[in-house]
This record gives sequence, C-alpha cells and structure tokens, in this order.
Amino acid sequence: MLINGKPMDQIPAADRGLQYGDGLFETIVMVQGEPLLWERHMARLETGERRLGLPPENKARLHQEVLNVAGDHSPAVVKVILTRGAGGRGYRPPVYPQVTRIVSLHPWPRYPAQWFANGIRLRVCSTRLGRNTRLAGIKHLNRLEQVLARQEWDDPNTPEGLMLDEENHVIEGTQSNLFLLKGRRLTTPDLSACGVAGVVRELVLEVAAEFDLTVRVSKVSLGELQRTDALFITNSLLGICPVAALENRRFDIHQIPAALIHQVRSQALSSIGMT
Amino acid sequence: MLINGKPMDQIPAADRGLQYGDGLFETIVMVQGEPLLWERHMARLETGERRLGLPPENKARLHQEVLNVAGDHSPAVVKVILTRGAGGRGYRPPVYPQVTRIVSLHPWPRYPAQWFANGIRLRVCSTRLGRNTRLAGIKHLNRLEQVLARQEWDDPNTPEGLMLDEENHVIEGTQSNLFLLKGRRLTTPDLSACGVAGVVRELVLEVAAEFDLTVRVSKVSLGELQRTDALFITNSLLGICPVAALENRRFDIHQIPAALIHQVRSQALSSIGMT
Repeated sequence: MLINGKPMDQIPAADRGLQYGDGLFETIVMVQGEPLLWERHMARLETGERRLGLPPENKARLHQEVLNVAGDHSPAVVKVILTRGAGGRGYRPPVYPQVTRIVSLHPWPRYPAQWFANGIRLRVCSTRLGRNTRLAGIKHLNRLEQVLARQEWDDPNTPEGLMLDEENHVIEGTQSNLFLLKGRRLTTPDLSACGVAGVVRELVLEVAAEFDLTVRVSKVSLGELQRTDALFITNSLLGICPVAALENRRFDIHQIPAALIHQVRSQALSSIGMT
Repeated sequence: MLINGKPMDQIPAADRGLQYGDGLFETIVMVQGEPLLWERHMARLETGERRLGLPPENKARLHQEVLNVAGDHSPAVVKVILTRGAGGRGYRPPVYPQVTRIVSLHPWPRYPAQWFANGIRLRVCSTRLGRNTRLAGIKHLNRLEQVLARQEWDDPNTPEGLMLDEENHVIEGTQSNLFLLKGRRLTTPDLSACGVAGVVRELVLEVAAEFDLTVRVSKVSLGELQRTDALFITNSLLGICPVAALENRRFDIHQIPAALIHQVRSQALSSIGMT
C-alpha cells in the first residue's frame, strides 16, 4: 500500500475521509501490470473531484503509483482512495485541502465459473438508497447504505442484491449496475438521483448500438424486472455477469448476446493494448 | 487522542470507517472534567449501534477514556468515533467486528457572545439531504451532504445554513437542529427520514412542557418558517442559539422564553451534578 506515494498503511485519525467520508474511490482491475479502463476510471474520479470541490489529482503520478503497487500481480485489484485530508473547521472543508492519496493492492476475487456460465441469483434488499443529485453517479466514500444492504443476507448462492430508492425505483446492485433486455431493447436504471455510474455500465451503453440494440436509460420498477426477457449486472471486476434468477423469477441467460459480452471484454482488454 | 485505549493518532487505512464511513460519532462538551448529557449521548450511540449492527460498546470504559482524554481542560470538546474496524469482504461487514474506538480532545469553540445576545443569521443551503429511514436520526460517519452544504458559503456572519430534504421539507442545520415558535406552539422538524436527532433537541422537547408550550414534531416547509414568530437552533456545543434572521426575514428573538434557555442549560449542567 502507498499513502501519498510512501509505503505505509496508516492514516491520521483526523483525516476527513474517516471523520466524514469526505472522499472518493476507484476499484481497478490490473492485468499484466496495466489497469483496465484507466481513462474511464479517471474520468469518473474527475467528475467526483469536481462535485466535491477537490483539487484535480495528478493522474500521471497516480498511474505510476498504481503500477508500482500492482507490480507483476496479475490479475489483481488496485483500490485508489482520495480524501480531502485533515483540516477545516467541523464539516467546513479547508479552502486548500491537502488530499490524501491511498493506493492499495488486493487479491483477484476468484468468482465461480458457473456464475458466468449459468448466471447468478439476485435478491431484493430492503435497505433503500437515498436520493441526492449532488452525490449521484460518483463513487464517494459514504457507503453505509451499501454496507447495510449487504448485511441483510449471507447465502453464498446469492452473490448480489438489488437496491431501490425511496421512491421504489430499482437503481442498482450493492456493488454493480443493472441491465434489462426485452426484445432488442436494453434498459439500465437512470442514476441522476442515486447510484454509482459504473465504468463497465458506460462501456455497455456505448457498444450496445453495434449489436442492433436500442439503449434506454430510464426509471425502472420491480414490475418491469418481472416482465423483462433477461437481466445482467456489470462492474469492473465482474465485467458482465448474467442473472439466472431474481427471487423466484427465472430468466433465460441465453437471451443476452454472447457477442456483447465478448465485445465488452475485448474493449476492456484493448484499453491496455491487448486484444 | 486515544485509539482503542492507547495514545495514538493513526488508524489502519483498511478501517471500514475510512473505506465506507462505516461507523458512528458523538461530540460531547466537557465541563470541569465531566461530560455534559452523557446518558443522552450514549443512548443515541446505542441506537446507532443497533441500526448498524455493531456490538454494544462498553460504555463504562468509554466514559473513563473520555475523562482521561479531557483531563482538566474545561470547557472542552471530546469527540468519540466508533467504527466497524477492518475486515469483511467489500461492503459486507464481518460477522464479529473488532470495533475501532477513537476518543479525541478538541478546544472549546469560543462562539461570539452576540450570537446568544442578538441571535444569528441563517441561510438556506442548496445541497439537499437524501431520505433514508434506516440512517435517519443517528450520528453516522456518512457526512458528505453536510460537508457540501457547509462548503456553499464562507460569510463569517452567517454561522449556520438550513438543509432541506429532496421533498422540500426543512430538516435541520448543517450541524444543528431547528425549532420554530409560533404563539405557544413549539415545532421541530420530523427526523424520521433524515437528519440527526440531537441530544439538546431531545432535551428541549422534554422541558418545553414545563413552560406551557405545546410541542409538535412534524414536517416543516420554508413557507412555515416565514410565518413563524421566532426560530432557534440547538446542538451540544451551542445549547440553544436564537435566530435573528433567515435570509431576508428577521425574527424577534425575545419571543423565545428566556426561562426555557435557562432551563436547558441548567439541565445540561445538572447532568454532571452542577446546578
């Protein structure tokens, strides 16, 4: 782990990242020493910096630190955290914050192959997402809603749970985005009031047009999920993962175009020069 | 500062308090070596522990650490943070968390005497509070909404800003609760969907009946604030602070019963055996 470029694993308890969750993070897949979808991760981080009023991080330096931490671990996961550092008066942030930069290496999660071959089971969480347009879309450090939602179940055969907002819209999984396929129409929930705009979600939205799919970003109800042909979830680590069942409703995972899954994987790998 | 009882000021970057804001805090006034309203602070902390699924902290040990950190500083402020510690898998919390306990001393904020003599100016923040019944009322570490709201202004003559929820209800200040007085009716916003249920707010609600005031906890609109006779805010450090103006609307601070302010202060002091 590197903190502000130095090999350390402790931060001051006065850091606003701890005191208020005043910061951002990214979780990045490393393959053969290179970060997948780096530009997209950095674009989201920059959106977060602008929203929180953080000074723009030196992305070249951050890239070098990510490479240094990952070394030759492949595949592996690197997590980047930026906080507003210490200082300020209560909630009021300092005018010129000294950002704390944390880059840490984590083992590759060995997801079971059958998740991708047969699809996974989803549940619906009772913990809701609060709506706040200023925090929606970015990957900030205020994640208690996800923690409480993930605490609701411990069945290892249900890897993910869906979260609704307080107005009963289906938004996302605790750590993934959601897509619905009905006929040739691909829908993903609108994230303008809550949720995290994932980098793989963005990639899926871009490549879907190549597969003659109509893309729609809109409000989604639980009823609409029941009536859809197929579901899949996305995140940086899973890529695209098909859904076999949501509670008692089963889905045909073969409705999901295999070429779409292949193309998203190819694009992620091509972001590091692999094909 | 004490961390888990030891004089330290650093925590592991892996702590869930930093990673997800997975924890709680209390800000406590120390007078002559004793914490004001200790039982109320601990009652709220216990509510938070139950909501987050944290094991109940040993409150006697915590009390001793608060005394040790404060020493003979008086008045002073002690902040207590409890986090779920390190561990778990992603958002999923460990079944048996090792709570991190941080007790830190802070100088007494020397609020200008004219705030209490003449009242303060309030503004209305544009940053909203997301609604989430599972997080409402407790003092958790996810405070980005308050940080963004407090970042909106830097006029030192406006010490506090009011926050609305996404449904346009007035909820609270960035770091205080709000009361409206109209005739003999005292109203404070309902906090069942968002906001922090302050210990002084609770005290005011209890003692108000002694002053022939009718107490109402309900939804409050900005229009209702315009039509009220008087406003005041409360928090652990301020006690009761009268409001002279909200944006361009001025209020008569003398409508607030001086005996109510006196009684709240007396009750706080009597919680440590002073009268």
